[in-house]
Amino acid sequence: MTRTLAKDVKNHIGEEIMLKGWIFQIRPVGKIKFVILRDRTGLVQTIVLDPKIDISDLERESVVTIYGKPKLEKQAPNGVEVEVSKIEIIEKAQVPLPFEVNRATEFTNVKIDTILDHRPFSLRNPQLGSVFRVQAEIVHAFADFLRTEGFLQIHTSKIISAGTEGGTNLFPIQYFEQTAYLAQSPQFYKQMMVGAGYERVFEIGFVYRAEDHATSRHINEYLSLDFEMGFIDSEQDIINLEIRLLQYIFETLKKNCVEELKLHQVELPTIKTIPQIRFSEAVKILKEKYNKQLSSEIDLDPEGERLICDYAKKEFDSDFIYVTHYPAQGRPFYTMPEADSLTRGFDLLYKGLEITTGSQRIHNYSMLVENMKKFGLNPEKFDFYLEIFKYGMPPHGGLAIGAERLTQQILNLKNIREASLFPRDRYRLIP
Amino acid sequence: MTRTLAKDVKNHIGEEIMLKGWIFQIRPVGKIKFVILRDRTGLVQTIVLDPKIDISDLERESVVTIYGKPKLEKQAPNGVEVEVSKIEIIEKAQVPLPFEVNRATEFTNVKIDTILDHRPFSLRNPQLGSVFRVQAEIVHAFADFLRTEGFLQIHTSKIISAGTEGGTNLFPIQYFEQTAYLAQSPQFYKQMMVGAGYERVFEIGFVYRAEDHATSRHINEYLSLDFEMGFIDSEQDIINLEIRLLQYIFETLKKNCVEELKLHQVELPTIKTIPQIRFSEAVKILKEKYNKQLSSEIDLDPEGERLICDYAKKEFDSDFIYVTHYPAQGRPFYTMPEADSLTRGFDLLYKGLEITTGSQRIHNYSMLVENMKKFGLNPEKFDFYLEIFKYGMPPHGGLAIGAERLTQQILNLKNIREASLFPRDRYRLIP
Repeated sequence: MTRTLAKDVKNHIGEEIMLKGWIFQIRPVGKIKFVILRDRTGLVQTIVLDPKIDISDLERESVVTIYGKPKLEKQAPNGVEVEVSKIEIIEKAQVPLPFEVNRATEFTNVKIDTILDHRPFSLRNPQLGSVFRVQAEIVHAFADFLRTEGFLQIHTSKIISAGTEGGTNLFPIQYFEQTAYLAQSPQFYKQMMVGAGYERVFEIGFVYRAEDHATSRHINEYLSLDFEMGFIDSEQDIINLEIRLLQYIFETLKKNCVEELKLHQVELPTIKTIPQIRFSEAVKILKEKYNKQLSSEIDLDPEGERLICDYAKKEFDSDFIYVTHYPAQGRPFYTMPEADSLTRGFDLLYKGLEITTGSQRIHNYSMLVENMKKFGLNPEKFDFYLEIFKYGMPPHGGLAIGAERLTQQILNLKNIREASLFPRDRYRLIP
Repeated sequence: MTRTLAKDVKNHIGEEIMLKGWIFQIRPVGKIKFVILRDRTGLVQTIVLDPKIDISDLERESVVTIYGKPKLEKQAPNGVEVEVSKIEIIEKAQVPLPFEVNRATEFTNVKIDTILDHRPFSLRNPQLGSVFRVQAEIVHAFADFLRTEGFLQIHTSKIISAGTEGGTNLFPIQYFEQTAYLAQSPQFYKQMMVGAGYERVFEIGFVYRAEDHATSRHINEYLSLDFEMGFIDSEQDIINLEIRLLQYIFETLKKNCVEELKLHQVELPTIKTIPQIRFSEAVKILKEKYNKQLSSEIDLDPEGERLICDYAKKEFDSDFIYVTHYPAQGRPFYTMPEADSLTRGFDLLYKGLEITTGSQRIHNYSMLVENMKKFGLNPEKFDFYLEIFKYGMPPHGGLAIGAERLTQQILNLKNIREASLFPRDRYRLIP
């Protein structure tokens, strides 16, 4: 007998079927018992009418096989109920459970650290588990869209001999006799792959930042959604592609994650366009409209990001806003400069949080070497990166999106850790 | 004017078009000059007839814009040729080039280390560059197939506090005040995600083995294509799914990588089924048919793998063969045992090389704890992994495919490094 999945039960009314899954809930109503079964496709209500079926030692979260016949039942969830003929226990769950996973509202009382300490178990809660179904769709839509735009998926090493941004915030690795580092970004490699002739590449991979601060918006290992493309006219080509990409991701989620979005009470807007302001304008708006002085002259601080998004919402009715023309002083050496010590670098803010950093890059070899020196870097140490620029590098640019941050903001999660299966932070290495 | 890609030139006969790319070849024939342009979609022949167009300072591999009109020309590759009206140099390539990238046959004289020292540049050679187009298709087909089978893509941490197989061959990381390690496999995490209720998960990610040997079949960072599934009857469910997966990958490559396979002179067979032999039979075959004594009693050595594949080819006309029922002594503690100190563990060999290891796993908590102890491991150290087994773990199993090895064997590459964009080995950390 083949297993029937919860989502397919309604197609087998009146047939004898076999279900497999976890006991989500047991609800006695007089002599009748309702047993809710959970499998990877959702929940299904079963009903035990036959008093000969003994379920006295059935525990929640045990793994079981249930045999029975589905019938239409208006009062049941999904309008279908399975009348049980037999229940077999495959694996018994111990009691007590670490916490309840079958109650959406009460669940909010469980602290984030308790959730993470029992990470696999916590994901049996439909709401918590749905976060990673949404994330998988985001990642899939990212790859899907870029493939149709002629991008090649690449996988570049995460063990590197030198940092991308000059050597700070690196995790050292003992690599045989040498010291190596965990990659902070695939930046050099994706640029090199544009120059290798692939022109358009994307990478989905973890990157590592040994940043000390433990906040609700930082983790030390995060999934970076990177792309890089050649033969562009300016950073506007990158921005335009990202807008279309985000439109595609949102439309995909609306289509494929109906239940998940409902669980999080999220209604996704249709992205039409995304407003842009220059960094200098952002500074002015913050001062004039919000009486806010930035803590730095070259970047927005977290409060600045929130206020600029507040402005974007009020002024343009947009959850997103691009901030462009950042000062050169605050951007990496490979960023294409503009007049007045500015750059063709931009950030994308979404509901108060930076989720993308991108730019047009320098493609001319001499200009790149000069800029490295200006930043106090020794070009000889970066020969492996610079070489391809000697042999014909097209104008290019790209960006990186933090997958966890995008997931967090889409689902309005309080802490980025909720959007990471096994977050690594200043104090957490387990599970 | 929009750019026309090399592959689309034939659709613009007689129109003025703009091409962008790299100069692949310059061939003077009397007063006429042929300039072959390369972009991400392939090559296109252009012809300079107008003597006023000065191309004397044009160098191979420079990035250019070429304007002209395509016309049908039987003798040109793809039957089309662009008569040039203007050439603009975007970025000039320096001379001399590290080596020639436009000659397929002579290229074989360039050593693998030279290729890797100039990795991005080397990929401009159509044959070398095509390897990663094939690899991207393999990875995409892997994900695509599993998604349609109800698998969820996951991304699990590569920074771990303890090794999967008991603590050997680990790269240590300085993680703030602690020592952590690079993950050898997502084994624990993918099992935990089955137990989390996702049932079927896959992961595409790098894993790390600090193995000392520097051979043509080992790299220290490789892309692992992992899946794990719950509610199986035995390891045969895993094997059957992998056969269908490989069929899908092969058919996808035949459809989407026609040019790439041609460049490597590869004709892919249609996979119908894959023969299986038990490990004990393999040992017997090696002894009786090949007079070969294995160097170990619990695993095949490289020569053994080659000979068993020779046997599979002769006996079953198959490039693939499963070896099943490996002795428990040689398999990890989580492998489901069988009678006579055997296991439900298997390997898949392909053209003389192991490309997959898999098994049914132990799902019962007590049995798993007992087996850990038998293997000399302390279960208390693995609480984070064991916990979910307490609360209802379904029968499950899975496998891992080495993406570089699969690519290598499909394309008949001599060295696994040819199938890794930026291989990391005993001595190589750069580029």
